Amino acid sequence: VTVELVDMIREYCIAHTNLVVSDLAELCAIPSVSAHAERAAEVLACGELLARKALEAGFHSATLVPTSGNPVLVARHTVDPNLPTVLVYGHYDVQPSGDESLWTSPPFFPTVRDEALWARGVSDDKGHLVMHLKALEAMLRSTGSMPFNVTLVAEGEEEIGSPNFEAFFAANRNLLKADLVVVSDTLGFLNDQPTICTGLRGLLLADVSVTTLASDAHSGLFGGAVRNPAEVLARMMASLKDGTTGRVLIDGFYDDVVSPSSEERASLISLPFDEKGWLASIGSDGPFGEQGWTTLERIWWRPTLEFNSLDSGDAGALVNTVVPSRARARLSCRLVADQSPARVATLLEDALKSLAPSDVKLEVAVRVAGRPVALPSTGPLMDGAGRAIERVFGRAPLPVRMGGSIPPVATFVEAGLPSLLVGVGKEEDNFHAIDEHLDIDRLIDGILLMATLWTELARDLDAMRVPMSQRGDA
Amino acid sequence: VTVELVDMIREYCIAHTNLVVSDLAELCAIPSVSAHAERAAEVLACGELLARKALEAGFHSATLVPTSGNPVLVARHTVDPNLPTVLVYGHYDVQPSGDESLWTSPPFFPTVRDEALWARGVSDDKGHLVMHLKALEAMLRSTGSMPFNVTLVAEGEEEIGSPNFEAFFAANRNLLKADLVVVSDTLGFLNDQPTICTGLRGLLLADVSVTTLASDAHSGLFGGAVRNPAEVLARMMASLKDGTTGRVLIDGFYDDVVSPSSEERASLISLPFDEKGWLASIGSDGPFGEQGWTTLERIWWRPTLEFNSLDSGDAGALVNTVVPSRARARLSCRLVADQSPARVATLLEDALKSLAPSDVKLEVAVRVAGRPVALPSTGPLMDGAGRAIERVFGRAPLPVRMGGSIPPVATFVEAGLPSLLVGVGKEEDNFHAIDEHLDIDRLIDGILLMATLWTELARDLDAMRVPMSQRGDA
Repeated sequence: VTVELVDMIREYCIAHTNLVVSDLAELCAIPSVSAHAERAAEVLACGELLARKALEAGFHSATLVPTSGNPVLVARHTVDPNLPTVLVYGHYDVQPSGDESLWTSPPFFPTVRDEALWARGVSDDKGHLVMHLKALEAMLRSTGSMPFNVTLVAEGEEEIGSPNFEAFFAANRNLLKADLVVVSDTLGFLNDQPTICTGLRGLLLADVSVTTLASDAHSGLFGGAVRNPAEVLARMMASLKDGTTGRVLIDGFYDDVVSPSSEERASLISLPFDEKGWLASIGSDGPFGEQGWTTLERIWWRPTLEFNSLDSGDAGALVNTVVPSRARARLSCRLVADQSPARVATLLEDALKSLAPSDVKLEVAVRVAGRPVALPSTGPLMDGAGRAIERVFGRAPLPVRMGGSIPPVATFVEAGLPSLLVGVGKEEDNFHAIDEHLDIDRLIDGILLMATLWTELARDLDAMRVPMSQRGDA
Repeated sequence: VTVELVDMIREYCIAHTNLVVSDLAELCAIPSVSAHAERAAEVLACGELLARKALEAGFHSATLVPTSGNPVLVARHTVDPNLPTVLVYGHYDVQPSGDESLWTSPPFFPTVRDEALWARGVSDDKGHLVMHLKALEAMLRSTGSMPFNVTLVAEGEEEIGSPNFEAFFAANRNLLKADLVVVSDTLGFLNDQPTICTGLRGLLLADVSVTTLASDAHSGLFGGAVRNPAEVLARMMASLKDGTTGRVLIDGFYDDVVSPSSEERASLISLPFDEKGWLASIGSDGPFGEQGWTTLERIWWRPTLEFNSLDSGDAGALVNTVVPSRARARLSCRLVADQSPARVATLLEDALKSLAPSDVKLEVAVRVAGRPVALPSTGPLMDGAGRAIERVFGRAPLPVRMGGSIPPVATFVEAGLPSLLVGVGKEEDNFHAIDEHLDIDRLIDGILLMATLWTELARDLDAMRVPMSQRGDA
């Protein structure tokens, strides 16, 4: 990548900052919350707006491909089928806002404040989609041409575990031919240190329901003489984990977990991880987790079992003296290499079944929502990405992992597509939390990074192809 | 009570059945749900309607006495202060409807079907209030005069534990002078066997909240490394009871519990209690409770600890992969003589505090909402009630207890007022449940019962006064 190209793109981006911000704000004003079924129309509207923005940016086509759930946007800029193709992945759905009253400005009323844009989804992941759109626009407007092809794939169900992405990918394999994949849905910094993500945890979702009665029963008339499902569920949940060691008590749960090497453990310690600040960001007084592991190991290298929600009786009533008929919990496991999500799903289901008393009605629905991914932390792809990051941010990136899950990454990797996880998010962007925001400087730098990254990678592509094709297990 | 009087009242009631039903339907059409704060205006409107109905029925005055919560209606028919005064207690607030979609007809759209009226509150307790109103009306219209005074006290907070009744009673002691109290808020039958209630359980309410974070946190980024409040709460709840024996594991919980005598245990066995049908009414497959006790003992003679609601995270989302910031539970204890609710409240609070890990924020609010009551099952008051019940329903009543709580009863008893618990409800009325209803025949018989009961008791009052005044500890 020539200095001239980088400078030309930077100039274009800075000159167009207001338009970039207003395009992103427009996308963020749509509450495309995939977790809330009643928002389906808004999720679709957001996909449609993104398609229009892609065409405006210079993509030749932008198609919303239907799935069993929300459609996937496929936008293509094809210069020449014989040139390399970079496939870019992101998502246009967002997390629920949580309690809107806790937000400084309303989550779906994007607001510029303190040189940042504040809105649900601005960092995760609409900001990253805009970076890719504007990277194409900047390259086309600055240089007048593209030396390679770009395919943008933006799905609308990442925040609910990408339930339809794998089927979409299999059904559209031809449309999605590419030489490499850039997934932009991860953090790009640890404090101010640029990072590049080489591992993601997998995800299992489980809905558990314990029913003991046909309807809520008066706790005076029936209390003490019939099964209370909330008590049964609490006991089952308490039995799944050891409260002292933090270990999951399901037989075989840890069987296939790959531990970090002593070198990897040592490198984790050297990372500029501000544990206190990280805990303070969510108002936690101190770390708590599996004994024998550090916080970074717990979130990057160790599997979990979390309780995401509980629901029984009518918690909204001032007083509700009933034996509830049913109690429900949502559990999820984050999984690490080489755990098989399907196997852990079976273990979890069996454990729940064996914990439930025989006289209650237990319903368990376990769903795999992402396989763990471990990518190589060296090689030409990482080298190219490292050069691009260093050029834009002034420092070479360090490899890190991320505790979250991006289900499509496993789909790409298992299809043999060389994949990179490059984002510019920071912990303090508060994605998935109250007051999500993205610094405008970082948004602009992100555009430059994506353009630089594409160009670096496409240039190296011939050199990379040989070693990559040997990495069938990448 | 002369045969003529009973016949005259019966005739009047039968002739006015449609008006009785429509008055009750009018009251039931108002969703006076005290547990839902947003219904306060409807609760008040129901009290106002009841006051109008009381004046129409022949009460000389009907005053809504303000409290810190919903007002208490005091309606008086004073013939002569020197004549005996019967004080009647009931409540015009109702339980929440639960899932309205499960009702055959909407809970607040009273419907006549199968010779019954169907609506929330029709049995508990608006039907009983209407019986007393119409008893006065029938006596006045049939005979032209009343040989004693009647004071009707109807509160609007019984379903939330009567938090303001005791203060109301203390502040209005003069207004509420009476020779005896008839509380009409209990069942009157065990299958077809008339019963009279001689014991109620007390009630403790506890709101428990465990907070570990300032806001929900992404379960990928933070999961496994910070405290999950739902897990902490589940573990605490599971530790409060033994899952096998059903015993409450709080030290001292059972200290002051009076067990039934061997005679009382034997008499329980002889009651026509259809356990299977009772369980089937709430869709329970079988009994479950404290080992060593029968079902009737469990609900009438043994204290309980129930989990009434659980709430953590966003259970309404399709997927919600967070570590929730907070988990809440509502617990309640039904207490029996001679447990001190204040002492058990302290024990429960201490137990919760000792179960919570030191690094979580625990909030516990325990509130006494009713002291246990044990009334004598023999004596002139019971004899008079027995005669009235036998005259109307053809069979003498058997003494039973009730597992529920009516906090004002302890207030009356502790003030030295001879008290009777006389209602005409049946288990199958589904009070506090889906499809609450009241047979129209039983509604009409109830009017007759109340008029007969008042008359029997007022006649006996001089004879009763001496023995009753000796029962300071009643």
